[in-house]
Amino acid sequence: MSEMRRICLTVSYDGTNYAGWQRQNNANAIENVLDAAIKELTGEDIKVIGASRTDAGVHSAGNIAVFDTESTIPAEKFAPALNSKLPDDIAIQKSRQVPNSFHPRHANTIKTYEYTICNSQYRLPQLRLYAWHLPKKLDVDKMRAAAGYLIGTHDFRAFASVHLSASTTVRTIYELEIYDDEPMIVIRVTGNGFLYNMVRIIAGTLAQVGMGMIPPEEVLHMLESRDRQKAGMTAPPQGLTQIEVQYPDGEDLMPGER
Amino acid sequence: MSEMRRICLTVSYDGTNYAGWQRQNNANAIENVLDAAIKELTGEDIKVIGASRTDAGVHSAGNIAVFDTESTIPAEKFAPALNSKLPDDIAIQKSRQVPNSFHPRHANTIKTYEYTICNSQYRLPQLRLYAWHLPKKLDVDKMRAAAGYLIGTHDFRAFASVHLSASTTVRTIYELEIYDDEPMIVIRVTGNGFLYNMVRIIAGTLAQVGMGMIPPEEVLHMLESRDRQKAGMTAPPQGLTQIEVQYPDGEDLMPGER
Repeated sequence: MSEMRRICLTVSYDGTNYAGWQRQNNANAIENVLDAAIKELTGEDIKVIGASRTDAGVHSAGNIAVFDTESTIPAEKFAPALNSKLPDDIAIQKSRQVPNSFHPRHANTIKTYEYTICNSQYRLPQLRLYAWHLPKKLDVDKMRAAAGYLIGTHDFRAFASVHLSASTTVRTIYELEIYDDEPMIVIRVTGNGFLYNMVRIIAGTLAQVGMGMIPPEEVLHMLESRDRQKAGMTAPPQGLTQIEVQYPDGEDLMPGER
Repeated sequence: MSEMRRICLTVSYDGTNYAGWQRQNNANAIENVLDAAIKELTGEDIKVIGASRTDAGVHSAGNIAVFDTESTIPAEKFAPALNSKLPDDIAIQKSRQVPNSFHPRHANTIKTYEYTICNSQYRLPQLRLYAWHLPKKLDVDKMRAAAGYLIGTHDFRAFASVHLSASTTVRTIYELEIYDDEPMIVIRVTGNGFLYNMVRIIAGTLAQVGMGMIPPEEVLHMLESRDRQKAGMTAPPQGLTQIEVQYPDGEDLMPGER
């Protein structure tokens, strides 16, 4: 019998045609498709474990999935071998072996997301699946002022879906930058973790600030309220792309607690 | 009876789901959809006339379409009114009145196209409909050297589909620039007109130069041969986007010959 190895995949996908990351019985989720491709390749019935459970319509440039295998395929060959079996809208960017104790959600990770707004008078067809179209001209300076209140360690309860199940709502945002690349406005946020819908509520709130509907300093009161009703709207899913998940030791993934 | 006016539309579209620009009996072309939207808005049976008859799968940021109407809708209101009736993957960016003698293909236009290559090791899912994926690292300096031979006024017969119907195969390329924005390589070309498949054959040839399959100076011999068999491959349609059509007087469209 072959040695059991844990393989870590960096997974990119266009979320348009999927019911989100998380495996479901009667829906087409990214995990279902990855499980099936691995089964086709190795013959093993496995269930991958992911780092970020992105919602339906949300995209990723580099989500993380791990699985255990007894196959003898070299770790780095899983990427091209799986890509030949996956549909065009999912692709493995990298595959490598990690310690058998590594768990993608139990390590201290740094996660980066980008939220893209298309701020043109009329919709741009090629961006319809990858950006939120807002025709009213946004005031990016005001959005940056509002973003300043969110950087740092705060209780983000007001910026999370009421359906959240996290044990604590305190999170740290390390960076929150807004790039103005007309007609695109990109909100890039890096933190030690995000609550359910947190990036989309931050994007929706900053967009409302940019439209003049909310004064920038109001964001401070939203945080203090710890009340979802006080924060802004949830931006639609198609503008969101998960960019990367960084583990403490970089390329050498840190073993997580089990 | 109202006065007959000629309206000019700037049309953007994602060509993925269309059989190209040109109206067809049994296929879903951009012209068919525009005709139907105008009929829904004005009740008139019209057929728009376009500037560039892009192929199936090719995109546009600003194609030009004109039509005559007796409706009293203000010219600039056609854009928002038609956008509310068009599918998400087609959008009018601008509408304006032009002289009744204006014909979009009979004026001396300057046309710009961009061809996008995704030069990453593995395919990037969000670019699959908007770029040509080439995993082999391209030598952009060689591509630029080859492009230099194509700038200017030449007989481009070798760079046109053998199915072409143009009366002359002499065209002028004013600019041919290659932008290296890893992992994207964008070939941007501006000229006084392009033969059938000319931009895609230029892109395919430059990609083969970038892969080391064709020496840059060979492009000069291809031109001189006037033989389609001597030039490089035709790049696939999804990487091509028509960017704009400029008329000599800019905003004031030049009346064309009839």
